[in-house]
Amino acid sequence: MSRRTRLLLGGVAVLSAVAGVLHYTGAPSVLSFVVAGFALAGIAWVVSFTTEAVGEHFGPAVTGVLQSTLGNLPEFFVVIFALSAGEVVVAQFSILGSIFANALLVLGFVIVVGARASEDGVMRFSARLPQDTTTLLMLAGFIIVLVGISSNTHDRASDDIVTISAITAVAVLVVYGLWVYDYLRSEPAGAETGATPSSPLRTSIILLALAGTGAAFVSEWFVDELRPTIDQLGISAQFAGLVIVAIAGNAVEHAVGVVLAAKGQADLAISVVKNSVSQIAAFLAPALVLVSLLFSEPLTFDLAPVYVAAFLLTVIAIWQVTGDGEAWAFEGAALIATYVILAVFTLYE
Amino acid sequence: MSRRTRLLLGGVAVLSAVAGVLHYTGAPSVLSFVVAGFALAGIAWVVSFTTEAVGEHFGPAVTGVLQSTLGNLPEFFVVIFALSAGEVVVAQFSILGSIFANALLVLGFVIVVGARASEDGVMRFSARLPQDTTTLLMLAGFIIVLVGISSNTHDRASDDIVTISAITAVAVLVVYGLWVYDYLRSEPAGAETGATPSSPLRTSIILLALAGTGAAFVSEWFVDELRPTIDQLGISAQFAGLVIVAIAGNAVEHAVGVVLAAKGQADLAISVVKNSVSQIAAFLAPALVLVSLLFSEPLTFDLAPVYVAAFLLTVIAIWQVTGDGEAWAFEGAALIATYVILAVFTLYE
Amino acid sequence: MSRRTRLLLGGVAVLSAVAGVLHYTGAPSVLSFVVAGFALAGIAWVVSFTTEAVGEHFGPAVTGVLQSTLGNLPEFFVVIFALSAGEVVVAQFSILGSIFANALLVLGFVIVVGARASEDGVMRFSARLPQDTTTLLMLAGFIIVLVGISSNTHDRASDDIVTISAITAVAVLVVYGLWVYDYLRSEPAGAETGATPSSPLRTSIILLALAGTGAAFVSEWFVDELRPTIDQLGISAQFAGLVIVAIAGNAVEHAVGVVLAAKGQADLAISVVKNSVSQIAAFLAPALVLVSLLFSEPLTFDLAPVYVAAFLLTVIAIWQVTGDGEAWAFEGAALIATYVILAVFTLYE
Repeated sequence: MSRRTRLLLGGVAVLSAVAGVLHYTGAPSVLSFVVAGFALAGIAWVVSFTTEAVGEHFGPAVTGVLQSTLGNLPEFFVVIFALSAGEVVVAQFSILGSIFANALLVLGFVIVVGARASEDGVMRFSARLPQDTTTLLMLAGFIIVLVGISSNTHDRASDDIVTISAITAVAVLVVYGLWVYDYLRSEPAGAETGATPSSPLRTSIILLALAGTGAAFVSEWFVDELRPTIDQLGISAQFAGLVIVAIAGNAVEHAVGVVLAAKGQADLAISVVKNSVSQIAAFLAPALVLVSLLFSEPLTFDLAPVYVAAFLLTVIAIWQVTGDGEAWAFEGAALIATYVILAVFTLYE
Repeated sequence: MSRRTRLLLGGVAVLSAVAGVLHYTGAPSVLSFVVAGFALAGIAWVVSFTTEAVGEHFGPAVTGVLQSTLGNLPEFFVVIFALSAGEVVVAQFSILGSIFANALLVLGFVIVVGARASEDGVMRFSARLPQDTTTLLMLAGFIIVLVGISSNTHDRASDDIVTISAITAVAVLVVYGLWVYDYLRSEPAGAETGATPSSPLRTSIILLALAGTGAAFVSEWFVDELRPTIDQLGISAQFAGLVIVAIAGNAVEHAVGVVLAAKGQADLAISVVKNSVSQIAAFLAPALVLVSLLFSEPLTFDLAPVYVAAFLLTVIAIWQVTGDGEAWAFEGAALIATYVILAVFTLYE
Repeated sequence: MSRRTRLLLGGVAVLSAVAGVLHYTGAPSVLSFVVAGFALAGIAWVVSFTTEAVGEHFGPAVTGVLQSTLGNLPEFFVVIFALSAGEVVVAQFSILGSIFANALLVLGFVIVVGARASEDGVMRFSARLPQDTTTLLMLAGFIIVLVGISSNTHDRASDDIVTISAITAVAVLVVYGLWVYDYLRSEPAGAETGATPSSPLRTSIILLALAGTGAAFVSEWFVDELRPTIDQLGISAQFAGLVIVAIAGNAVEHAVGVVLAAKGQADLAISVVKNSVSQIAAFLAPALVLVSLLFSEPLTFDLAPVYVAAFLLTVIAIWQVTGDGEAWAFEGAALIATYVILAVFTLYE
């Protein structure tokens, strides 16, 4: 492990400790919230980093499975604590926000940087992963659109949104499982580098366990301070979820995608972002819908019409931009602009 | 004609006779309905089979035209009898159900089987037919979406849904006609095998006539028993149309697509299913809208919002999955899951 | 300048003068409107023609920039005068109509003619421009859909449609600027023919200035006579905007696209139409939203639900038809049919 990594790990630990102290000593909410947000962003990075380090000892398939299940641990805890605090809107918009932040903002920057890094101004990558991501997102989108319309037109099915959400969540999870199985099996085995793993297995597992535990604690403090912060700043819960929580939970973690794009590793950059998006939409979200059945106010696929449309259009937009395996800088800018438009909207909600 | 075919033909004849007896002797509705359903599925297969046999005597172009017009005779009769019984919802959902069953369920199975049959797990086929089907479905979808929104927002055009449906139906039929003309003309003439047709022309025509007549009778019994069956089982008319009628009218007939996929004949398998979908959406549906003007309650393109969205998303989903000429098993699973989600929905309507 | 061009220029001048005389002498509205419409169509052609002639003196990049900004001068004036007369619906539907007329009607004819002109019945062109146009249209569509849904569901953001429209208009303009910059830079410099420009620079600039001034006057007369004509003929403002104004402002000007397609110049034909569509949607429309803040009733992205859906489906349809760089005649027919369906709809509004 490099000196720089050790320093960063120490920094995240200190930040998390400070967030805890501020939370339990009743410091001003906004301050506690901001510190917890930075700590959470740091922990998200540690989870991502240690998951990979553990995987290095077992080969790409295991790394893939680990990343597909543990990669969004911080988002998972944020949503669970939001649900247990009865904040269903915050819970929903944290998930949605993670999808939008990754699919529009992070992907947009990856494309702008990747296209500028390429000699002829075009970022080129395999079209398969973008196509697969689109298929998984369309499936989730199908449920979201149907549930959203049913709920808004108050048809008969709208009385059974919780049941319908749970049953259809299982359908999405099955398809996601099949995809992960197919995808990992078809990955070239030669992708395994045979290089010496950067840190011993025991260290990596301990770090992962610590990061997981840290994520659980810091998420709770973060969610606890969210409502007073929203009220104090006078911003909408939608803006908080879609912009603030989403960037805290994803932006730092996925800065790595932008770095990879700058280095010209287009395929890897795209796969970091795309896998994260499909994971949240087709694994984390349906899994949380099922887990949330244990809470008094369960999570469903029922969203306000504006966000149903925003989800569907985002799916179509990223398909259109990346589905042909080529992306120009202005296409990345269009995705970033789409995110800005959405953020402007939530400001006025 | 093989011994097996003769046996199956005999079986369909017996089943149809039993359906007639049950219907006229006032047997319990559910029993009569189930037997009529199986008989109808059998007749759908006979129509498909004899249409091809007649076509063999004239070459692929004539086969194409025959299949494009007669291929959905059973669905045609079901809808006509449903309309004459004043069951507009059943009529609409029979058509919609045929589209969904073919485009999602049958196509999904074709892809799963075809991808598994391929050595590298990818089913490959010409992208042209899927693209053409998408164009035709988008055109039908344009009307459905506009009419659906107009009707639901009660704007001024909503008073003229019947007229608008009729005029726009003509537009779709013209485009469908141009497509059939272009498509048949561009088919390689060498596709004609020159093999001896499997049965004499006269036999085939007689069988087709018998099957057509049978379809007319059995459809009427089937529709007659539908309403009491729905009421007795307590299921929604939507579920009956989308799932039961659709599978009776299509699933057996199109099992042939799955068989072709298993044999590695990817292009043929895709074309059986795709042609059927575009035929129903861009020929049968608008034709029925025009024919239905003769009834007191005409058929229109006006659907409940949930089904408008389901139609549009289905068009986009099958375009996304098949438009690139490649399909993985998980994509087939995603289409099947989409059908399951829709079926779950109709259960609660 | 050829004799034919001089004659046509003279004709447009005479037509414009007649339109002025009819307007100021209080001739019957329908007559004044029709003459002003033809004069406007002629002026649109002169603007398009002189813009190119001026550009010829500076190379393709300058031509591109000129065409991207001045190309829709007549539409610009029509919308400005409609807004200053308080006719917000006419203003909106003139812009929308220009998009639909170009994207569906003109593009449809270009494809039908281009496919027929090709030996194997397939029109082939570079897929890049259609993909770029789709990206720009999707961005505009994202705003239109979000604003439309917000306004129709009366959520909180619906009170701030004017502000949201203005802010998001800036986002679209920035992306359009980046696209023009990228697009012009990547155009092969060799596209410059080096041929002697067809007329001296001074003549071209004078003609362009005259055409611009003419456009301003004739647009005002055209808009002035529009409302009495609508009332007299009993047609809807939507039909007037989507069909009559759109065809006056675009059809003649873009007949050039159809001519190019007939000559087998597929790429050029597609680019004339596509550039015009993205220019109106991603430059003219957001620019007018900003300019209109000066008027008492500003222009926003808020449309009736039917037209929101029509816009989105049009974007998806033209992407589907042209995104693969190939188009068959029936696909062109499908686009024309889509326009007809939309026109039928507006007839009943």
